[in-house]
Amino acid sequence: MENDFLYVKPGEIEKESFRIIGEELSEQGIVLKKKQEPYIKRCIHTSADFSYAKTLVFSKNATTILENLLKEHASIICDTNMALAGINKTALAKVGCKAYCFMADERVKEIAEKEGTTRAAASVNATSHIEGKKIYCVGNAPTALIELDKLYHEGRIVPDFVIGVPVGFVNVVYAKELIINSDIPHIVNKGRKGGSNIAACLMNAALYRVEHRQL
Amino acid sequence: MENDFLYVKPGEIEKESFRIIGEELSEQGIVLKKKQEPYIKRCIHTSADFSYAKTLVFSKNATTILENLLKEHASIICDTNMALAGINKTALAKVGCKAYCFMADERVKEIAEKEGTTRAAASVNATSHIEGKKIYCVGNAPTALIELDKLYHEGRIVPDFVIGVPVGFVNVVYAKELIINSDIPHIVNKGRKGGSNIAACLMNAALYRVEHRQL
Repeated sequence: MENDFLYVKPGEIEKESFRIIGEELSEQGIVLKKKQEPYIKRCIHTSADFSYAKTLVFSKNATTILENLLKEHASIICDTNMALAGINKTALAKVGCKAYCFMADERVKEIAEKEGTTRAAASVNATSHIEGKKIYCVGNAPTALIELDKLYHEGRIVPDFVIGVPVGFVNVVYAKELIINSDIPHIVNKGRKGGSNIAACLMNAALYRVEHRQL
Repeated sequence: MENDFLYVKPGEIEKESFRIIGEELSEQGIVLKKKQEPYIKRCIHTSADFSYAKTLVFSKNATTILENLLKEHASIICDTNMALAGINKTALAKVGCKAYCFMADERVKEIAEKEGTTRAAASVNATSHIEGKKIYCVGNAPTALIELDKLYHEGRIVPDFVIGVPVGFVNVVYAKELIINSDIPHIVNKGRKGGSNIAACLMNAALYRVEHRQL
């Protein structure tokens, strides 16, 4: 009975949610790859949308690469403050990484207005000064992916990993295909769906793996 | 062609997205009520999930009540920092409202641990000292809705409005039904789906209406 869980602890609720997700995936005949499983299940947990089991694309060894980057204390760069807010700060501190978002940066605003582009695209530019390894966590702005791909091909930015899950109706499918077809290690959700919540939960899935959490 | 929009301004992208959403709703034979339309379309815009057109529940005169509360400078209380991060701060300032989240509050943490409940439930308690009208914006924690309903029936809190769109697999459907069956003015998404992004975008839809934005 669902109501049995009314007064249980939050950790138990999450555990039970993942059990239900696993059960329903089995009922649908979906078998996930072992390393991708915690990522895909967390997306379903965040959205209650089982379509993520079919649309998430992982480049070769994506989860291992991503988890190793976190172990090397890579910087995480989010395209929105919402994605940044969704990243578990306790896990982040424990793993020893830092996360950023430059969307509200005054200089980014100026560049975007001057060039008639989005602030997300302008803020990708603003990351070139960050030293060390970089993970881009994009849940909202397809223009951020388009700019990343462009700057990568111009040799101006080397993204060590891209979580590319913007949501939307314009440019989104195209921008995701750019990353899928690139040689940048990535996790991308094909099609229109995604969001800041999905970007953050994929990042959390990686952090929890590095932390050796169970889920 | 999708790619025609690669270099257009962000405002144009949003406008085009809403046009596509309207077109696809028409193709599906869905006609939205005029006052609910900007809210429902914004949820679809945020999630690329058309199921929101069928599952969002509005209590009587919900949008008018919500918009009037904003005009009266009601406080907005979010259950997560992610929902808070998703609320458009420029619109919020223009309308003259303030938004809060007490999840990271030290006292809330202590109460939650002591009582073995969620921080979300504990933080609903923490709102009793806020004066004036209150809008609760819940995108993550069903326990926040359950606690709200309980405190309301005990006469300890009077929520002037509840946006009840937590996502999940445990308690979620039940918690939403509590609000749907209450006499608290509300917008609730039936079923499992929702999220901090949906909570924030419903709040933004209301703010934009008060601001007289077009979308």
